[in-house]
Amino acid sequence: MRQVAGPLEEIVGAENVLTEAEDLFCYAYDSTHVEFMPDVVVRPGSADEVARIVRLANELEVPVVPRGSGTGLSGGSVPIEGGIVMDLTRLNRILEVNVSDLYAVVEPGTITLDFANKVEAEGLLYPPDPGSNSASTLGGNVAENAGGLRGLKYGVTKDYVMGLEVVSPTGELFNTGSKTVKCVTGFDLTRLIVGSEGTLGVVTKIILKLVPKPEFAQAMQAIFDEVGKAASAVSAIIRAGIVPATLEILDNVTINAIEDYKPAGLPRDAAAVLLIEADGAKEAVQRQVAQIDEICRREGARKIDVARDEAEKAKVWAGRRAALAALARVKPTTILEDATVPRSKIPEMVAAINSIAKEYNLTVGTFGHAGDGNLHPTFLVDERDKDEMARVEKATYELFRIGLSLGGTLSGEHGIGITKAKFLHWELGKNGVEVMKRIKRALDPKNILNPGKMELGGGRK
Amino acid sequence: MRQVAGPLEEIVGAENVLTEAEDLFCYAYDSTHVEFMPDVVVRPGSADEVARIVRLANELEVPVVPRGSGTGLSGGSVPIEGGIVMDLTRLNRILEVNVSDLYAVVEPGTITLDFANKVEAEGLLYPPDPGSNSASTLGGNVAENAGGLRGLKYGVTKDYVMGLEVVSPTGELFNTGSKTVKCVTGFDLTRLIVGSEGTLGVVTKIILKLVPKPEFAQAMQAIFDEVGKAASAVSAIIRAGIVPATLEILDNVTINAIEDYKPAGLPRDAAAVLLIEADGAKEAVQRQVAQIDEICRREGARKIDVARDEAEKAKVWAGRRAALAALARVKPTTILEDATVPRSKIPEMVAAINSIAKEYNLTVGTFGHAGDGNLHPTFLVDERDKDEMARVEKATYELFRIGLSLGGTLSGEHGIGITKAKFLHWELGKNGVEVMKRIKRALDPKNILNPGKMELGGGRK
Repeated sequence: MRQVAGPLEEIVGAENVLTEAEDLFCYAYDSTHVEFMPDVVVRPGSADEVARIVRLANELEVPVVPRGSGTGLSGGSVPIEGGIVMDLTRLNRILEVNVSDLYAVVEPGTITLDFANKVEAEGLLYPPDPGSNSASTLGGNVAENAGGLRGLKYGVTKDYVMGLEVVSPTGELFNTGSKTVKCVTGFDLTRLIVGSEGTLGVVTKIILKLVPKPEFAQAMQAIFDEVGKAASAVSAIIRAGIVPATLEILDNVTINAIEDYKPAGLPRDAAAVLLIEADGAKEAVQRQVAQIDEICRREGARKIDVARDEAEKAKVWAGRRAALAALARVKPTTILEDATVPRSKIPEMVAAINSIAKEYNLTVGTFGHAGDGNLHPTFLVDERDKDEMARVEKATYELFRIGLSLGGTLSGEHGIGITKAKFLHWELGKNGVEVMKRIKRALDPKNILNPGKMELGGGRK
Repeated sequence: MRQVAGPLEEIVGAENVLTEAEDLFCYAYDSTHVEFMPDVVVRPGSADEVARIVRLANELEVPVVPRGSGTGLSGGSVPIEGGIVMDLTRLNRILEVNVSDLYAVVEPGTITLDFANKVEAEGLLYPPDPGSNSASTLGGNVAENAGGLRGLKYGVTKDYVMGLEVVSPTGELFNTGSKTVKCVTGFDLTRLIVGSEGTLGVVTKIILKLVPKPEFAQAMQAIFDEVGKAASAVSAIIRAGIVPATLEILDNVTINAIEDYKPAGLPRDAAAVLLIEADGAKEAVQRQVAQIDEICRREGARKIDVARDEAEKAKVWAGRRAALAALARVKPTTILEDATVPRSKIPEMVAAINSIAKEYNLTVGTFGHAGDGNLHPTFLVDERDKDEMARVEKATYELFRIGLSLGGTLSGEHGIGITKAKFLHWELGKNGVEVMKRIKRALDPKNILNPGKMELGGGRK
């Protein structure tokens, strides 16, 4: 790959090209268990450098895989065909926060939480808050259309991307969208790029929508002795026309993993806990909390605690945010899924997860955004145990099949990447995948950008 | 075109194929002043018939232009190259309204208001409410990404389309999106189709997101003696972190046109009126109304009236909804624009509209969704007056140029269609238009679906 590294150094300087094995290894994985080594890593410092790198890659017919912090959960940024990993973390400036017009302009390498804190200081809210927000980049969030804990009321990353600056797979810079709240000028290329996992363009600038910060928020937890009752309570809350900002579930396995790792005062004997936060006008929030309390009791909650102060609230959410890390400590390998169903199907999905785990003799911890129908059943396994890995593969097949049969989708917020690539046609059908392939070929005739993902096909053309 | 009508009759039956001039004429126009005759009109009754018609058109290399009720405002559904107009109004069933999971499934020919009323009866709200909602179809709304009066708080059509069933330009049926609130499975083909004006597919089924109906709403009007002060009040309201459901402006010309046509009790001597509606929890709404009252007074409102009952509220909104029809009565031809700017630029845009009208000696009435930065300056002209038409053309050029220079967009909610096609590259640049063209060619190699729109090029390939 010396023939690639040399010209890359001419574009970005020698200090921004990595070729040593120990450096490359840091770019071989994301937060799944998928690992592939890149041949070279390049760290551009401007959109123009990004465009020149992509044009070079087209000339030399070498793949380019854009990457932020590598916190993805579907292998989206893993270079499965080697080639160039393009690390975008040097492009990390917050260029504008416009309080009058409620938008911001950022570069893709900006850390999600840094940005959220900055706009909060201006009295505004950037709602998407993926679990990894202290490490993840906004560019990575855009590429995978990251979700988070506030999806129920506020939506996910795609709902906040107003426009983009993008380098096309053939190396031309173009702009999409607008800073206006309404825009119907041409195809919605913004949304075509969001969630395309770096296969259709490299994002070099992002216009993000902001909202006024809600004046009041209240957190509560409802404790259940049966997981099915907790799931039914979720449906009952939504059916009552209440839309809390957050409505999360933790099952017994997850509760105990959290308490072993970062004690958050969760009841170790509970079958499930719902963590709920309502926000908005104070009177409305107080009324919602009272309604939710009543519904949870009616659905069989053993106990309901409303956080008395910010410290109690912070403790609840710190526990929830630690869920994945806590489960990851239990066994060497975690297989985290995010099959998603319409909200009313949550009780059926929870039952299915537990019966599948039993059938295949697997330990599963389930947590997630119950209010969105977006659960994260997490199988706790050991990748050295071939038999167990074979069983978990069958179990995830089964899970996807049931999720789809309940009217759901393969991925609520983690993306397809490589881990779910082979299932894509189950949901989109042959014709849907073919439309995607036609678009990919039209924009990336040599298959340079992030090849081999999402059933789009690998190799150079 | 007998060679097309015959095979079309085989697909849909003779009663659903129109070839007489007087019938064809009804399909030659939309709500702009653009007119082109189709060669034949076909009225399919199923998605399968739609697919067969599109495949036939590919074989015969004849254009197909999908159409709902023809209420569009950019010529999007006008058959500028003749060929087949596909009238989708027979596909008008509401297939499902799911109260638990907050979605509905409809066919594209469903009338927008019929649907809105149906979901309201279930205690739910379908927020998009384009001005023409009593006649427009949901399929047309999707094709043009229609806006409406609630855009400020609730967004526009694209924000409510969860998934689609689509016939591709080559006649294959595919599905996009999901009934789940979160979905990141593959490219966002849903949003690529929404707003693509029938150039990338014919929509045959739509999954729409619904929200709980707000428990309370309050309408008010603020009267100003200077249009600039009304515009400043709009910015001040948004800057205060208040997001009303609706925040509309009517200028003096529009007020008088409405009072001449459908009297709504608007003050004929006012320079401008803001019509505002807040909705949500009752206490929160009451507080917002008080805050808005205070801000409007501070910004120089002469008088503020809060609607005392539903009848008063209905009268206010009936007046606003009549604005375009009222202006259309003043002169034979209306040239209605929807150039849109970031909200804080509304005062500058209003000033620019009035100075442009003066410079080119034109009468303009301005109304629209001020809270979104989405104004509808409407030039009142006579298309038989060549000199006036030449002046209005120059004035609209100027308007687009200024809107874009203020960080705005060519179209907030009416689409590009044919009336703004030649300006598209002003906003998207050569590279942006080229990306659109590549996608169009990839999905529609023979340029069958709605050719000649949005700078995508005309003629068969």
